[in-house]
Amino acid sequence: MTPTSSTQAQTGSVKTGPQAVDFTHRLTEVAGTVETFLVERLGPEVGTGEITRPPRLMAAMRHAVLGGGKRLRPFLAIETARMLGGSEAPALAAGAGVELVHCYSLVHDDLPAMDDDDMRRGKPTVHKAYDEATAILVGDALQTLAFEIVADPTWQPDARIRADLVLGLARASGLGGMVGGQLLDLTAEGRFGTATLDVDDTLRMQAMKTGAILAFSVEAGAIVGGADEGQKAALLRYGLALGQAFQIADDILDREASPEAMGKATGKDKEAGKATLVDRLGLDGARAECDRLVGVCEDAVGPWGESARILRDAARFTVARKT
Amino acid sequence: MTPTSSTQAQTGSVKTGPQAVDFTHRLTEVAGTVETFLVERLGPEVGTGEITRPPRLMAAMRHAVLGGGKRLRPFLAIETARMLGGSEAPALAAGAGVELVHCYSLVHDDLPAMDDDDMRRGKPTVHKAYDEATAILVGDALQTLAFEIVADPTWQPDARIRADLVLGLARASGLGGMVGGQLLDLTAEGRFGTATLDVDDTLRMQAMKTGAILAFSVEAGAIVGGADEGQKAALLRYGLALGQAFQIADDILDREASPEAMGKATGKDKEAGKATLVDRLGLDGARAECDRLVGVCEDAVGPWGESARILRDAARFTVARKT
Repeated sequence: MTPTSSTQAQTGSVKTGPQAVDFTHRLTEVAGTVETFLVERLGPEVGTGEITRPPRLMAAMRHAVLGGGKRLRPFLAIETARMLGGSEAPALAAGAGVELVHCYSLVHDDLPAMDDDDMRRGKPTVHKAYDEATAILVGDALQTLAFEIVADPTWQPDARIRADLVLGLARASGLGGMVGGQLLDLTAEGRFGTATLDVDDTLRMQAMKTGAILAFSVEAGAIVGGADEGQKAALLRYGLALGQAFQIADDILDREASPEAMGKATGKDKEAGKATLVDRLGLDGARAECDRLVGVCEDAVGPWGESARILRDAARFTVARKT
Repeated sequence: MTPTSSTQAQTGSVKTGPQAVDFTHRLTEVAGTVETFLVERLGPEVGTGEITRPPRLMAAMRHAVLGGGKRLRPFLAIETARMLGGSEAPALAAGAGVELVHCYSLVHDDLPAMDDDDMRRGKPTVHKAYDEATAILVGDALQTLAFEIVADPTWQPDARIRADLVLGLARASGLGGMVGGQLLDLTAEGRFGTATLDVDDTLRMQAMKTGAILAFSVEAGAIVGGADEGQKAALLRYGLALGQAFQIADDILDREASPEAMGKATGKDKEAGKATLVDRLGLDGARAECDRLVGVCEDAVGPWGESARILRDAARFTVARKT
């Protein structure tokens, strides 16, 4: 299966243009804000006793969520909302919801019945650190918590915005998005009988499995930031191109990077006999396609001028990252 | 683990008072309405092609959801809303969301790493009929679909009501409710080391695992039906007592019923060495406690007089059911 997820934060060495220092500083800063928000939601000190927050479940949820990841999805939500003049708190809550969905999918994808991975973000996967039953429940509870946070009026008084965020997150992550894409990925590996997946099939599968939720991260920022329909359409173009670029960059990394650098197994696509865009275009051609998609991203946010600098840098970062 | 779920519809033989025929007719009628609603959401004819609705995933989701169950949770949501003068369509959508959460929990609870059950509602469990990976994804996608339906403006234009329903459903089904209760149940079975669970611990665990979502079914009807705070408090009393009565009735059934009648394994509590209220009170004492709880339910909906007849019958049905 394609390792499509982000891994350990490693932002210092990426060249993202003249404002690279600003960008990596901001990415690290937002990751810290997201971490603090998630610690507060998952901390043992919250709640009314052991019965309502089983300690083992909470510890395993913290293992799954805290201390790793670039937090690219909440970053996109927050920076999109900021570009539109929105405040950070409601975008942080929406972005944290997306991040929790991302984290739950990693926990379930790593299970023995799925990818059977032992390591994630350089530490044991949840079912290795705990056990399979706990890992299944951790994933389930993380998904639920994502919707609970997004629907919570604490961070967002406008119920219409909250309901829109829930609906968008569900559509991006369910049977027509992330989960459906994961099923197609397993199908592509021949899990349910002989299957052939050409490059276009792979692109569609990837668009569902990882593209939909990345694009929704941007859309969440647009919803929270009060974008009008024209702005939403432009930001959707940005989000979709970013998702595609992210995926091709992942395919390149899967072919090139070492397991040590990635904190997880690599080369699994080739092993699984799955065709990716790298097979069709070669490594140089795939890199050129990434650059083209970055151009699409830059065009899409062009109307925002200097205010869109962080989102332009984010597109460049997505294709230049080393993990 | 306690079999806490509903099984095959079997409503014809239950004595629920003079209006028994009316009640069982209505229960069957609503189950049909729920089935139709779910068929439309899960049908192969919906969607824009195989890529966005993987056929294997859809078929396995239908296997998990359709053709079984009394649909008690949507019934409670719909009848509560109707009692309050609300229309059926928005309550149906909310109730269907609760039912999908219930269904997802059954699919994951049945997994080999959890209860390892082969049969459910008289047919093979999802991981037996398909495979473990598909069953994990089916559960994940059903949870997502639940929130998608509840947040969808098609059935409920009022965004505040939709957001309230999402929040309530998430709280009832997540780490402080259903999933947390399931983790405590596994703990009680000694899965994570030696554990002792006295009767009060069991009652708390059951209140989280199954009580919270049953009580929310009633609350969902109250939210959709526009209940004021006093009405909500009364309906919460009804829902909590109903959830307790349901669980004790399940404990009695687990001790008494045959696997054939239940469509799944029975006697698992005793096998797991888990203390239930039946151990403390005996079978007759447990039945008396059920009757007391039915009285609490009847008192709670007393102010609604004849309009509350179906909810009163539902409480009696809950303790008198044979599956």
